Amino acid sequence: MKCFVTGGAGFIGSNLVDRLLADNHEVTVYDNFSTGALSFLAPVLRNKLTIIEGDLLNDFHLLREMDGHEIVFHFAANADVRFGIDHPGRDLEQNTIATFNVLEAMRKKNISQIVFPSTGSIYGESNIIPTPENAPFPIQTSLYGASKLACEGLIEAYCEAYNMQSWIFRFVSILGERYTHGHVFDFYKQLSSHPTYLDVLGNGEQKKSYLYVQDCISGIFHALNTSNDYVNIFNLGNFNYCKVNDSIKWMCDYLYLDPELRYTGEDRGWIGDNPCIHLDISKMTKLGWEPTVTIKEGVIKTVRYLENNPSILERK
Amino acid sequence: MKCFVTGGAGFIGSNLVDRLLADNHEVTVYDNFSTGALSFLAPVLRNKLTIIEGDLLNDFHLLREMDGHEIVFHFAANADVRFGIDHPGRDLEQNTIATFNVLEAMRKKNISQIVFPSTGSIYGESNIIPTPENAPFPIQTSLYGASKLACEGLIEAYCEAYNMQSWIFRFVSILGERYTHGHVFDFYKQLSSHPTYLDVLGNGEQKKSYLYVQDCISGIFHALNTSNDYVNIFNLGNFNYCKVNDSIKWMCDYLYLDPELRYTGEDRGWIGDNPCIHLDISKMTKLGWEPTVTIKEGVIKTVRYLENNPSILERK
Repeated sequence: MKCFVTGGAGFIGSNLVDRLLADNHEVTVYDNFSTGALSFLAPVLRNKLTIIEGDLLNDFHLLREMDGHEIVFHFAANADVRFGIDHPGRDLEQNTIATFNVLEAMRKKNISQIVFPSTGSIYGESNIIPTPENAPFPIQTSLYGASKLACEGLIEAYCEAYNMQSWIFRFVSILGERYTHGHVFDFYKQLSSHPTYLDVLGNGEQKKSYLYVQDCISGIFHALNTSNDYVNIFNLGNFNYCKVNDSIKWMCDYLYLDPELRYTGEDRGWIGDNPCIHLDISKMTKLGWEPTVTIKEGVIKTVRYLENNPSILERK
Repeated sequence: MKCFVTGGAGFIGSNLVDRLLADNHEVTVYDNFSTGALSFLAPVLRNKLTIIEGDLLNDFHLLREMDGHEIVFHFAANADVRFGIDHPGRDLEQNTIATFNVLEAMRKKNISQIVFPSTGSIYGESNIIPTPENAPFPIQTSLYGASKLACEGLIEAYCEAYNMQSWIFRFVSILGERYTHGHVFDFYKQLSSHPTYLDVLGNGEQKKSYLYVQDCISGIFHALNTSNDYVNIFNLGNFNYCKVNDSIKWMCDYLYLDPELRYTGEDRGWIGDNPCIHLDISKMTKLGWEPTVTIKEGVIKTVRYLENNPSILERK
């Protein structure tokens, strides 16, 4: 298949591209390289991969480049949940409007299939833990979640209106190789510069679920191969969750460090932070998929990756 | 209170303005007059009403004009559900982006309260009828519903991030004085030009609930006076529903007409049309509000209004 991957030079996108190329598909990566990196694609540079530098807000360029493809993996996004309130328009532009541009280009180019990474953040602070896909209608607590919810709605309405087909995945936080932001990144960066103490947002008791990026990719392809509704929505996460304090301990044990932990103390790390994200993944496991890497292993793999790629730390 | 009413020259907005002025509030109407009409405000022109012609996509103008107000009733919207798929960007611009501009202006001007009319369309084709506010996470079936869902998410995230407070109302279709589009409008217009036949989209069996505009307004103020969470969400509808064929019969009986009914025949009137909208209003009735006008009475009142205001028919 001829696959168009927005954000294909990013963390999850580039791991997805690896898999598409391994499966012998033709791939076009469309990325503005704001957080993605050409080096993430270097191991797979070959005939079947085309890389285009472009921005999804440039709808004319996007439209031209999308021509001739059969499926779109729309993985470009502003994924920075935490700083949403400092830039209230960013999620709207880079997620909602960008997704609209992708859908419009697909409609005009008669491309009918889209794969979209959404987020567990759209459940807000659900009363149901673990949270299933058909949880009660949520109240949004972050601009990031609100923007991804808007994207889901747009995709669903396009499927209804223009006979498209979509696979929407609500992710927990993803860990692993090419990871470039999030709490493991922040903690590792802090410990690299001052190994004797660690500043922790919140009280460390926030419960979060994490999924290793290769499990995430395998889940996406498993669902693509086994589900065929016009709108297919799946949670992708791990069986369980950990506390932020757990991941700190795993990291410190691995690094042989014993830093002073300096908590800011609230039950949330920041405004809009959800103190408990744990998704019900039974809809996926009933299809025969399951995660193979524990959260602890995922954290350690991520730290190992950051150790071996110190230049990543300089990028932010 | 100093009230800023976007879309205040429109159908529901102008009825809201009547009520605000009757309650002795100062009111600024901000409207681009694309569907609103100055004549809707003529009966209440007086000192406490300021009318500004402006477009919500002009964020600088909006920001300036919003200065000094205490509460925003954001009633401007593209409310044309049916033609969404002919103009896929319209709902995004006029609903989602316009609402973002309203929220940004509020944030910059330290205005913390917003009242927002959403729609029962955001429930998609719910399996639960009548549909309560906490229905299972819906799949969007129209660009209009998707855009209003995006607005709800933005408002909720702004409330969380910037200490705002919101009242969000999910309406059924509203009928009554100053009604300018929808099935009663379409049917009346047809019967005015050819009384012997009526073209009906779908099979006439679509079930819809309707609320009379004065009941809608009374519901809004009842909720404002009795609910004080940071995000307050209510369905506003009638106790029951009718079929499109019922409303045709009521109209024809009232008009002494017996037209040939020419159905297009599908179970939906158009792509994205929901064959059954009936909202659970028990959350509102528990607060002590209830509709006082039946659907049949609402249809007749609307026809009577159109009879007495034939110029309305010329506007589309």
